[in-house]
Amino acid sequence: MKNDTIVLDHGSGGLLSHELTEKIMLPAFDNDVLSRLDDSAVIESQKGRMAFSTDSFVVDPLFFPGGNIGDLAVNGTVNDIAMSGAVPLYLSAGLIIEEGFAIRDLEAIIASMAAAARQAGVSIVAGDTKVVPRGAADKLFINTSGVGWIVGDLEINAANARAGDCVLLSGTMADHGMTILNQREGLTFDADVKSDSAALNGLVARMLSAAPDGIRVLRDPTRGGVATVLNEIALASGAGIQINESSLPVRKSVSGLCELLGIDPLYAANEGKLIAIVDRACADAVLAVLRQDPLGADACIIGQVTADHPGRVVMETAIGGRRIVDMLIGGQLPRIC
Amino acid sequence: MKNDTIVLDHGSGGLLSHELTEKIMLPAFDNDVLSRLDDSAVIESQKGRMAFSTDSFVVDPLFFPGGNIGDLAVNGTVNDIAMSGAVPLYLSAGLIIEEGFAIRDLEAIIASMAAAARQAGVSIVAGDTKVVPRGAADKLFINTSGVGWIVGDLEINAANARAGDCVLLSGTMADHGMTILNQREGLTFDADVKSDSAALNGLVARMLSAAPDGIRVLRDPTRGGVATVLNEIALASGAGIQINESSLPVRKSVSGLCELLGIDPLYAANEGKLIAIVDRACADAVLAVLRQDPLGADACIIGQVTADHPGRVVMETAIGGRRIVDMLIGGQLPRIC
Repeated sequence: MKNDTIVLDHGSGGLLSHELTEKIMLPAFDNDVLSRLDDSAVIESQKGRMAFSTDSFVVDPLFFPGGNIGDLAVNGTVNDIAMSGAVPLYLSAGLIIEEGFAIRDLEAIIASMAAAARQAGVSIVAGDTKVVPRGAADKLFINTSGVGWIVGDLEINAANARAGDCVLLSGTMADHGMTILNQREGLTFDADVKSDSAALNGLVARMLSAAPDGIRVLRDPTRGGVATVLNEIALASGAGIQINESSLPVRKSVSGLCELLGIDPLYAANEGKLIAIVDRACADAVLAVLRQDPLGADACIIGQVTADHPGRVVMETAIGGRRIVDMLIGGQLPRIC
Repeated sequence: MKNDTIVLDHGSGGLLSHELTEKIMLPAFDNDVLSRLDDSAVIESQKGRMAFSTDSFVVDPLFFPGGNIGDLAVNGTVNDIAMSGAVPLYLSAGLIIEEGFAIRDLEAIIASMAAAARQAGVSIVAGDTKVVPRGAADKLFINTSGVGWIVGDLEINAANARAGDCVLLSGTMADHGMTILNQREGLTFDADVKSDSAALNGLVARMLSAAPDGIRVLRDPTRGGVATVLNEIALASGAGIQINESSLPVRKSVSGLCELLGIDPLYAANEGKLIAIVDRACADAVLAVLRQDPLGADACIIGQVTADHPGRVVMETAIGGRRIVDMLIGGQLPRIC
């Protein structure tokens, strides 16, 4: 590259835009569809219903323990697609870069996107880069959109929870959210606090193999955390959800940080966890599959779907009380993802 | 809405995020797939190859004569999909909003997106909204991604130009680019200078009906303008392109503004025009179809593909000379789209 930092001409559509694409994006993402550089990526015919999802990432800081905005952007969209039971295959990447951004940092982030895509088995086939003048954006924002195809006649969505189903969580809560806050506050509280950013599509495929008819709802509890997602499921399904405080997994270091900062881990963001609402008859089989996978090693049953209090999430507290768990009201953490 | 302006909690994933989605996005975009609010939009099975495209819009100012960032974002992605010969069907919208942005302006922009989508016959089925603190973004950025399906075995891409083909342009150059510059410089040069922002998928469908086998390349000359796109086609096809200066259509008011500001209209952005490389035998038929459509009323043949000077674009000047037309080197206009 001729420059050390991004200049406005890298977003002009002209020669420097081409250099950026050809020297950084194409070698990293390395696939024939993207390399054709047509206005659209053309993808071979696929069978079945398609899942289509989009997410913009504005996380601050860009680099954090456990990942950076690049792998976060890939994993986030891969997971959104996987939560419909689809097999994610193709992603797009839209970058908005602030003038003056270091090319070295961009290269590191693109390399992380490429590595995350390889690990998840998806290809980044379409892209766009815009550059805005200094002060018009904070460093770098990334949008990823993606598509995947649903095998057979699976119907996995938030409206499917039924009274009696079990509520599974694939691992500890709040790792990502507290990592970002820890970094931003300059606390560097504990080396053990790191983002859980990970692609869950492989895990979902194994869960579906184990219980093809028993998985009713899948959701990844990102912004708003476990509490908000459970509320969304309760509302969409018109069922109640009851969870047990003592069964909620939180890493000790994360829990300490939450107490110090007054954050409820139920509302903090996760980037490599899923909630599964599962037919009670399949719950043990699904739990076993989860626990066999490093991404689900701490999986547990955190509650159940009830006919009582439809649309509401209620928690049995550790000291034996009951309280309503609302959707997130205030935003605890801006720019968490 | 409880607020007049966007606050950080509108991007938290919690209650205010839900209010924003349910009061502004869902009523405007109005379709069952989006309304399910699952992590992915699930789309019925489609036949054939799929075109997939993404584009981020950072245009400044947000509102300009002829449109705003909302319709621009819809038309831009619709056009990218249409340029592969695909029928665009579904779009996603990813918004990054600066804290303090006026809800009234957001509503106007979302209404424009919805109107543009209706006019183009596409549905906005997936969305995401992030809010960043004051100063971390300039007002509003929009990413749109989209998918469409290619009818039959059409092969329309930049590598297909062949010596002897005609180069068609669907109308006047530089309208969008000069409108933005006019606004930004506070020149308000002429009421006649306005953006050409428009969806071209209907026009493309009619061109393909008229000459299903004769259309080799379609491209919309946005950033970098007609000159840059012709260079991309020449490079991808390994052919030369020769254009005639006297045949290049530019609105008189736009041409005056270009002269005043020292901008070459060949490099200025268009948002509702296409370049078609067409088999000579079909050129008149395609031209007739273009001219029957208000979006192609000023269409003309601007040149031809040659076996000479492969990879290069050469212009016969109005005074009888010849000069090489390079790809855009410097960015004339940041934040043009």
